[in-house]
Amino acid sequence: MVQRTLSSDLLGKAGHPARIEGWIHRRRQLATISFLILRDRSGLAQVVVSDEATRQQLDGLGEETVVRVDGIVSANAKAPGGVELTSPSITELSAPAATPPVELWRPTLSSGLPTLLDYAPITWRHPVQQAIWRLAAASLQGFRGALDVQDFTEVHTPKLVAGSTESGANVFTVDYFGRPAYLAQSPQFYKQMMVGVFERVYEVGPVFRAEPHDTVRHLAEYVSLDAELGFIQDHRDVLSVLRDVLAAMVESVRSTAADAVECCGATVPDVPETIPVIHFRDALQLVGADPDEPDLAPEHERMLGQWALDKYESDFLAVEGYPAAKRPFYTHPEPGDPRWTNSFDLLFRGLELVTGGQRLHELADYEAALEARG
Amino acid sequence: MVQRTLSSDLLGKAGHPARIEGWIHRRRQLATISFLILRDRSGLAQVVVSDEATRQQLDGLGEETVVRVDGIVSANAKAPGGVELTSPSITELSAPAATPPVELWRPTLSSGLPTLLDYAPITWRHPVQQAIWRLAAASLQGFRGALDVQDFTEVHTPKLVAGSTESGANVFTVDYFGRPAYLAQSPQFYKQMMVGVFERVYEVGPVFRAEPHDTVRHLAEYVSLDAELGFIQDHRDVLSVLRDVLAAMVESVRSTAADAVECCGATVPDVPETIPVIHFRDALQLVGADPDEPDLAPEHERMLGQWALDKYESDFLAVEGYPAAKRPFYTHPEPGDPRWTNSFDLLFRGLELVTGGQRLHELADYEAALEARG
Repeated sequence: MVQRTLSSDLLGKAGHPARIEGWIHRRRQLATISFLILRDRSGLAQVVVSDEATRQQLDGLGEETVVRVDGIVSANAKAPGGVELTSPSITELSAPAATPPVELWRPTLSSGLPTLLDYAPITWRHPVQQAIWRLAAASLQGFRGALDVQDFTEVHTPKLVAGSTESGANVFTVDYFGRPAYLAQSPQFYKQMMVGVFERVYEVGPVFRAEPHDTVRHLAEYVSLDAELGFIQDHRDVLSVLRDVLAAMVESVRSTAADAVECCGATVPDVPETIPVIHFRDALQLVGADPDEPDLAPEHERMLGQWALDKYESDFLAVEGYPAAKRPFYTHPEPGDPRWTNSFDLLFRGLELVTGGQRLHELADYEAALEARG
Repeated sequence: MVQRTLSSDLLGKAGHPARIEGWIHRRRQLATISFLILRDRSGLAQVVVSDEATRQQLDGLGEETVVRVDGIVSANAKAPGGVELTSPSITELSAPAATPPVELWRPTLSSGLPTLLDYAPITWRHPVQQAIWRLAAASLQGFRGALDVQDFTEVHTPKLVAGSTESGANVFTVDYFGRPAYLAQSPQFYKQMMVGVFERVYEVGPVFRAEPHDTVRHLAEYVSLDAELGFIQDHRDVLSVLRDVLAAMVESVRSTAADAVECCGATVPDVPETIPVIHFRDALQLVGADPDEPDLAPEHERMLGQWALDKYESDFLAVEGYPAAKRPFYTHPEPGDPRWTNSFDLLFRGLELVTGGQRLHELADYEAALEARG
């Protein structure tokens, strides 16, 4: 049986017959010649059709039809990848159920978000949309790889839980065989338990937040990247691990998804050897906010991001020492000044990317903290 | 500041001072000398206490107290790892809230499952219990690694869904802002959509089954390892990828979790170059079952597992061609005999481990299959 060749492997087969399989990405019918652009998982391949019967056949095959094409690989510097398939015979493998709602061959999709989502199985096929998934996959590889080499153990913790993780608000309720259960908002308590087992653990998995806010900063469900480690001095140790993890994620994107980066025009950041840190108190002063403000507004975060870029040439800035009132009860206070905490937010280009900190580690401190909060 | 040394790194420091940190795994008080076995993420370290004051201090520190020990690394062939810490000074870092409900230093935990689960944050600390997690983590590394090199793209799909995936039975219902939503029983439809995008995808994530059965074969929530690929001839191509994935999982366990394997006394299987295959029809005959049986009973699966071991020296056996009546409507029929399907179950030592198959790939076939099922 003839083996399939991927688009990206055609160059090595110039002068030889080859079989490619994939989706009809685009057809261009000229006066005496037709072009078929075929898309497979490795990219695009150009097929040149000059035979009249095949041109008519191609005319009847709509975009997104899955086809097999047998032809001769011919070098052509102008074709994508430097080769094209000539003298093709085309076999239809699977016809689309309907004409695609968007033209996937256009450089960008002009559709609004509703169309992108309603027709996601089709619109994700667009190279720029694909790139988003590829970047996510590459990032996760880097995340896990960095933690694996630092002795972290991967865990998977329950998503159906008997109690709510945070304040008790914003949890989804599940009918669990007639009793109420909840969807985990975070793996944090499980992570903490597992630190008692492995010292260092991480989890990649869904979390659920019943926050009825229609903003770009709220999602009912998302994939959370969580890590936790014991035997630290304070939150700076956590930030140091985070720095290495981010560097590995960026490196993984560069090395395994460079085409996806180029495709969606992203600028991959450099992660500095040491992430610059500013205390929350100083951050408020820097942006001209009231010193009693309990949190940073999005506008403040943008200003701080610009400041870090100007002062440190860094896309990343850690703000440490958030006020105790705005952090969970289990956050370790700042030694010497319990108004502040051993915690941080990591800003990336002025947007909160990661939250971290040091937890309490004595039962009595937990009890005191809970009592203080009533 | 003195840096912490892991137990597993002590051997290289013989003759030098070192600081170790971890949990008091065990204390043994002899007439004139005491031993402290400290557990950290890398294993166990023996500390020899001869100083009377330190012996008394150790006497007051219960098992699972988190301590720092500064001492001198001394070679001792009889100690775990060939070294021990002598002339120690001990600092308590964190006291346990209660005496552990089990003795973690015993070779095996004799507690029943209820105790193991009720005190899971403690019982998982036992080396044999830890090993289970480590084996799972190593397996997942192998799973993803094998699929990554075969051009699969990792995806994460929604767990909150608007409709049920399979028959509609056994789904958990969620209150989604006043409307009903469901927990995904499987990522299968999303996987299938994403094959249209990337050809080859995989996902590691939780699935939810509202099956009120109290058996070892049913779980309300578990982590599912899912993969799907397009451009196959039939289910045998899927089995071939599965074989490579299993081999990589086993290899990852051998190379990164050998100590966990030894610790729990597991026998890691060899994955044959080609997994033996038997047709469902022949399997029924082999076990002496009625040829009209629609499925294999657990006892049949055990017999088949033994048969594969005897005949092929294989812990793995694929049973292909399951009757259409017992497979989902979207399973591709066996060419030439639609009573059977292009599907398989992979048995491992007589227990169903993986289900796979070829799906329909034409809309008309789906419609016909749905109509045939009413």
